[in-house]
Amino acid sequence: MVQVAVMGHGVVGSGVVEVLENHRESIAKRAKEEINIKYILDIRDFPDSPYADKFTKSFDDILNDEEVKVVAEVMGGVNPAYDFTKKLLLAGKSVVTSNKELVATKGAELLQIAKDNNVNYLFEASVGGGIPIIRPISQCLAANDVVEIAGILNGTTNFILTKMIKENMSFEDALKMAQQLGYAERNPEADVEGHDACRKIAILASLTYGKHIYPELVHTTGISAIALEDVAYASAWGGVIKLIGQVKALDDGTVDICVEPMFIERSSQLAGIDDVFNGILVRGDATGDVVFYGKGAGKLPTASAVVADIIDCVKHLKARKYLYWADGDASLVKPYEETSFAVYFRIETNDKAAAEENISKIFGTVKFIARSEAPENELAFVTDVMTVADQLAKAEQLSKTGAVIKSKIRISDL
Amino acid sequence: MVQVAVMGHGVVGSGVVEVLENHRESIAKRAKEEINIKYILDIRDFPDSPYADKFTKSFDDILNDEEVKVVAEVMGGVNPAYDFTKKLLLAGKSVVTSNKELVATKGAELLQIAKDNNVNYLFEASVGGGIPIIRPISQCLAANDVVEIAGILNGTTNFILTKMIKENMSFEDALKMAQQLGYAERNPEADVEGHDACRKIAILASLTYGKHIYPELVHTTGISAIALEDVAYASAWGGVIKLIGQVKALDDGTVDICVEPMFIERSSQLAGIDDVFNGILVRGDATGDVVFYGKGAGKLPTASAVVADIIDCVKHLKARKYLYWADGDASLVKPYEETSFAVYFRIETNDKAAAEENISKIFGTVKFIARSEAPENELAFVTDVMTVADQLAKAEQLSKTGAVIKSKIRISDL
Repeated sequence: MVQVAVMGHGVVGSGVVEVLENHRESIAKRAKEEINIKYILDIRDFPDSPYADKFTKSFDDILNDEEVKVVAEVMGGVNPAYDFTKKLLLAGKSVVTSNKELVATKGAELLQIAKDNNVNYLFEASVGGGIPIIRPISQCLAANDVVEIAGILNGTTNFILTKMIKENMSFEDALKMAQQLGYAERNPEADVEGHDACRKIAILASLTYGKHIYPELVHTTGISAIALEDVAYASAWGGVIKLIGQVKALDDGTVDICVEPMFIERSSQLAGIDDVFNGILVRGDATGDVVFYGKGAGKLPTASAVVADIIDCVKHLKARKYLYWADGDASLVKPYEETSFAVYFRIETNDKAAAEENISKIFGTVKFIARSEAPENELAFVTDVMTVADQLAKAEQLSKTGAVIKSKIRISDL
Repeated sequence: MVQVAVMGHGVVGSGVVEVLENHRESIAKRAKEEINIKYILDIRDFPDSPYADKFTKSFDDILNDEEVKVVAEVMGGVNPAYDFTKKLLLAGKSVVTSNKELVATKGAELLQIAKDNNVNYLFEASVGGGIPIIRPISQCLAANDVVEIAGILNGTTNFILTKMIKENMSFEDALKMAQQLGYAERNPEADVEGHDACRKIAILASLTYGKHIYPELVHTTGISAIALEDVAYASAWGGVIKLIGQVKALDDGTVDICVEPMFIERSSQLAGIDDVFNGILVRGDATGDVVFYGKGAGKLPTASAVVADIIDCVKHLKARKYLYWADGDASLVKPYEETSFAVYFRIETNDKAAAEENISKIFGTVKFIARSEAPENELAFVTDVMTVADQLAKAEQLSKTGAVIKSKIRISDL
């Protein structure tokens, strides 16, 4: 029998307890050991819980109990999770987590401590909820050079965009609906401004390229500025707008990494991933495109990924697993201004004929897009591939002719 | 440095050599050991190969060389691969394979020998080519009870059906095109009659439910009887026809397992998987639906999965991995006649009014489907859920009224 502890009894934490208890027998078979929850750590009281006797408010109970071999950290946030995880790893206990913020900001350090202490630090649940992605990238695709990863990594923003695309709902109304359905927090910033997706692509990039790519190095734009006009132009162009977290290996050894809304062609495998679903495309040089699809969040999907990591730790109590990346720095990341892609602009102008002429003069070859019911003073176009620096300089030039730039959205090459 | 051997130098085998050589450095980093190909076994001569010095025609060279720790068996077919694999495992060497026929027919025995000899027998490449599926099911989804697996497991038939659906091409013409493009063999039976998909769903079912489900227990129907009329009715019904390998856990402890063409609703995640692509849906009780998508075959995708398994073996030279299932028998599988689902019929009749009356009398509530350009003597309908035994008995009754049954296709509940 292996004793484990669960730190945090929120949505995911209570799910972990539920999955471990409800599948006790089949899990024991798979782990080849019975798994028993000895402690549940939470500062709140749960007097009515069937597991009331397992609750503790003292982290030291877990840290100092030599019987506890594996701990699930499902508290979220950097503090005190960071301090707790460090102490547990140093004490020779394996830790599994769904805490993307902690892995994205402190992963390299914690993985090094795990390595030095011959224990495991696993985090399958930190990206994609219940969708297997960390293990497939690190193990199944190990024979590939991963050329690119692009994913719809945040269910809340995908739900909002789906409502905008399919029901012509405004961003504000769709957000309100997401909040009513419990998909978005009262303070939705982490989701709608792209921070959550940013942490996830930072984790996938670090894992894939072996060096820590910190979230603050990832150019991140959310979806709060997306208007229904842009949705309509994306449709006229032949696609949809999705919030994409993306990392690409460049020839000079750096990576192009970002989170931003993108125009995605309708034929792309990511275009049909709607509502709260997540989808992650991994492009390997040998295997081609592989897509992983499922619910990216939610109590039981995320909990089941945490429990799968617990099982893996129990099976590897004396062996180190595969997960590791070294520390990294800003030199790994291509500055956003130097990255290149085609871009969509929507502008307002009082003189369309003159504006079209100016646009062609400034941007070179562009493709104008038309939509039905466009107001008289609106123009939209897609440029050729150019650096962001060029895009901005040319946009500045265009502004000087009197045109007002209302939107600028990346065109995906997927 | 770890010495490995590759048995078979066909499409996949030459791909394995190519991937191992071209990614030598990054693979060494991931495996934490350099990997060297010491032998390539093939009965043919390859005098112009850059690896000419590694070729041998003698299996004993590999078997008797104590330096060789891991062997990739990419010969295909049961003989002599079965005999070779058994001897290698008994000699304490790990074996990895893409050989679905061997795994589907001898898996339980070979996994037992691997277990007894503390070595690994891995076969990620046997299902889904380069799509990670074996490891995600056995590891990432370990905390789930897998309720159902349904997949488009054969790229050749999916290509043919896509041509029929999107270009109104006949089965014969689409098959000819698949052969010209190298997607189908000159003798296409293993693909079009569903045998290839049958082996793959047998492997996934055995892995998921822990007992060997032999291919001969899987009711298997191919796509050669699918007519363009059926494709048109599927479209009018709101979906497409796909060849699905499916296994469902039933309440009585048996499984409903089959390979057959099915009507799939357009909104299903499997409906949009076209051309030579494969897609596998795994429904877990905790994680919900997870879908894996990618190229299910081809030289480099399949080879990269074989090499990922080699890397895993090299990392676990002294540790047993997770893959195992016990032997099984016919009692695991619900007899096909006792399984239940809704079904589509297309019939010919000289008296439609009378036929409609007979159909309703015999089948109870049905839904008639109309298509444009249907000939005067054609009728199509979808029944409620009923056992296959009932379907057949009622079809027999209907035939006695003079109606001629032209098609009968399962309705998927995905």
